[in-house]
Amino acid sequence: MSRLEARYRVRAEAHEIEAIAEAIALEQSVEVPRAAVRDARVRDEIIARVKEISSVGTGEYEVRLLLAAETMGDDPAQTLNMMFGNTSMHAHVELLDAEFPEGLIKRCGGPRFGVAGLRAKLNVSERPLTCSALKPQGLPVDKLAALCREFALGGVDLIKDDHGLADQAYSPFAERVRACQAATVQAGRESGHRSVYVPNLIGTPATLIEQARIAREEGVSAVMLAPALVGLPVFAELVAEHLHGMIVLAHPAWSGAARIAPAFLLGKLFRLYGADAVIYPHYMGRFAYSQPVCAAIAEACRKPWAGVREAMPVPAGGMSVERVGELVAFYGRDVMLLIGGSLLIADDVQARTRQFVRAVEAAGAALGAAA
Amino acid sequence: MSRLEARYRVRAEAHEIEAIAEAIALEQSVEVPRAAVRDARVRDEIIARVKEISSVGTGEYEVRLLLAAETMGDDPAQTLNMMFGNTSMHAHVELLDAEFPEGLIKRCGGPRFGVAGLRAKLNVSERPLTCSALKPQGLPVDKLAALCREFALGGVDLIKDDHGLADQAYSPFAERVRACQAATVQAGRESGHRSVYVPNLIGTPATLIEQARIAREEGVSAVMLAPALVGLPVFAELVAEHLHGMIVLAHPAWSGAARIAPAFLLGKLFRLYGADAVIYPHYMGRFAYSQPVCAAIAEACRKPWAGVREAMPVPAGGMSVERVGELVAFYGRDVMLLIGGSLLIADDVQARTRQFVRAVEAAGAALGAAA
Repeated sequence: MSRLEARYRVRAEAHEIEAIAEAIALEQSVEVPRAAVRDARVRDEIIARVKEISSVGTGEYEVRLLLAAETMGDDPAQTLNMMFGNTSMHAHVELLDAEFPEGLIKRCGGPRFGVAGLRAKLNVSERPLTCSALKPQGLPVDKLAALCREFALGGVDLIKDDHGLADQAYSPFAERVRACQAATVQAGRESGHRSVYVPNLIGTPATLIEQARIAREEGVSAVMLAPALVGLPVFAELVAEHLHGMIVLAHPAWSGAARIAPAFLLGKLFRLYGADAVIYPHYMGRFAYSQPVCAAIAEACRKPWAGVREAMPVPAGGMSVERVGELVAFYGRDVMLLIGGSLLIADDVQARTRQFVRAVEAAGAALGAAA
Repeated sequence: MSRLEARYRVRAEAHEIEAIAEAIALEQSVEVPRAAVRDARVRDEIIARVKEISSVGTGEYEVRLLLAAETMGDDPAQTLNMMFGNTSMHAHVELLDAEFPEGLIKRCGGPRFGVAGLRAKLNVSERPLTCSALKPQGLPVDKLAALCREFALGGVDLIKDDHGLADQAYSPFAERVRACQAATVQAGRESGHRSVYVPNLIGTPATLIEQARIAREEGVSAVMLAPALVGLPVFAELVAEHLHGMIVLAHPAWSGAARIAPAFLLGKLFRLYGADAVIYPHYMGRFAYSQPVCAAIAEACRKPWAGVREAMPVPAGGMSVERVGELVAFYGRDVMLLIGGSLLIADDVQARTRQFVRAVEAAGAALGAAA
């Protein structure tokens, strides 16, 4: 029988942890008291099983459950539901990780490019990748397009919309995508360095499908989505059905799911459902993620996993050009550095962007020399 | 200028709270340092404003922000994004509540029925409503349909799928909906009491639309969805576009995985986007929600709100027939009681269901007498 192994961290007293683990097993499968299960097959095959309980600190336990894969099928919403649907409402339980059945992984597919594919598509063979962001929202389309031109002439690889850019009256989606794409392509023709513009898709499913269509029509080759915000099942379906051949950046908005380990949600789940690159807050920036959490996210993005391609980690959130060396030393060459405000605050955005790009080249070369 | 007022609880030291409030205002609007905003209109109209900071306990503050409505348009995903997108990743910040601009509320629409409409549709004029759940998952379709018959003959108002029932091989969605709807209708013909069967819709957007179509074709008049799990924007679009005339029950699965006050998420947001009835864990059941939290959820569901119809609160999660009196005394008559396991554990499910229904009638009558 195919089973998914889910791992939870539970705060509990020693005398109650066994009962709690059993309660989670029932909650995440049949959702009735064991005595109400009269059907032998349900009892033997459907009820989740407690595989292991181990102490991981004072009053803290790790519980491993085996969940029947047939309760999930291949549906992303139902997979989340069975892993953490009701138990998400228990403040003393955190979802740490899961080992997925091989069949489910295969059918989900993961990233379509992987690190090698991404490098090939962006024409960057060795060094870390660079990315910047169009902000602040509220600017009209022509100013955003002008920023694209500065970033592109500065030589950055990806130019992404701020995740706050939607379909607002002051920069409507269709008009913005057309202008930013055109400005980026034009700058590439002039400079010889081809940057890629990445619009942010956001909205209800019908809106997302329409935005993907517009982006494709405008010749855009990469898009950004916030899977936790639009819904992971929506993200999965968009990647599978509506974004063929496009690079997909995942943004962490709304993912501040206190009780799901960031490495699992941002690294493993976003990757499972097809993110080619995963943006997350790097430590010592504007957010409080710790160094081990950032290392774990990057590892979940890149480590070998049952034939699933890698996702590129994209540390961000208040990074500066001055920290490039440190970032590359920490993550190695398979990383994309995303710096926004630290470029935009400069009087000459293009020059500052070039400084960013040079710093990444130098840091990448230093890595090569050290290796 | 139209603005949304968002309310956050922030853990902070006294000397840093002003800087933190300002940082949240920037993060939830322009996402760059103030110095990087050169455009006067953006500075004056787009950057969120700190309206008020008040101490609410040692090291705890409530921060009120005014967010520009034009950053959101009417899109649900973008509205969530601007309220809590990046700030959800700050462990010291919880989203407590928001006051929405009237135009946004009007265009969202809220529940299509309200308490009066729900009562009319279910033909129950005075007493609290009753609901039970088909479980455990793993049962084949004929056993689930047989359970429907028992619940219906027992006289319950709504019979809902367990939220774990999806489109599994052991009870495929289309086959299950057909059989359960037929069994429920047939029992109504025999007994004269018309119960309503409520299938659980779960999956990616395309799956949900297809399931809604099947349900409608089978004559189903009510459905259940888990907005936090399928994605709130998906939920909003389904209600608006694909569930005309159908009662919509909202299930709380996955809703615990975020630092958002339950009354705001389950009560206000689910209601805003069209839930007719909102299921949530009642205190002293299997979940740890407190009595004040439950009261706040019910209040958020039912209180007068800019012309938005009420959503019916549905306390659940390990409730028993023996607690009916207490539940009705706590919530009053405009409530739907959902009891599953406590009926299913009985040898005679139909008799136990009848006991539940009688208890609710008696408790409703007692309320009337007391009033």
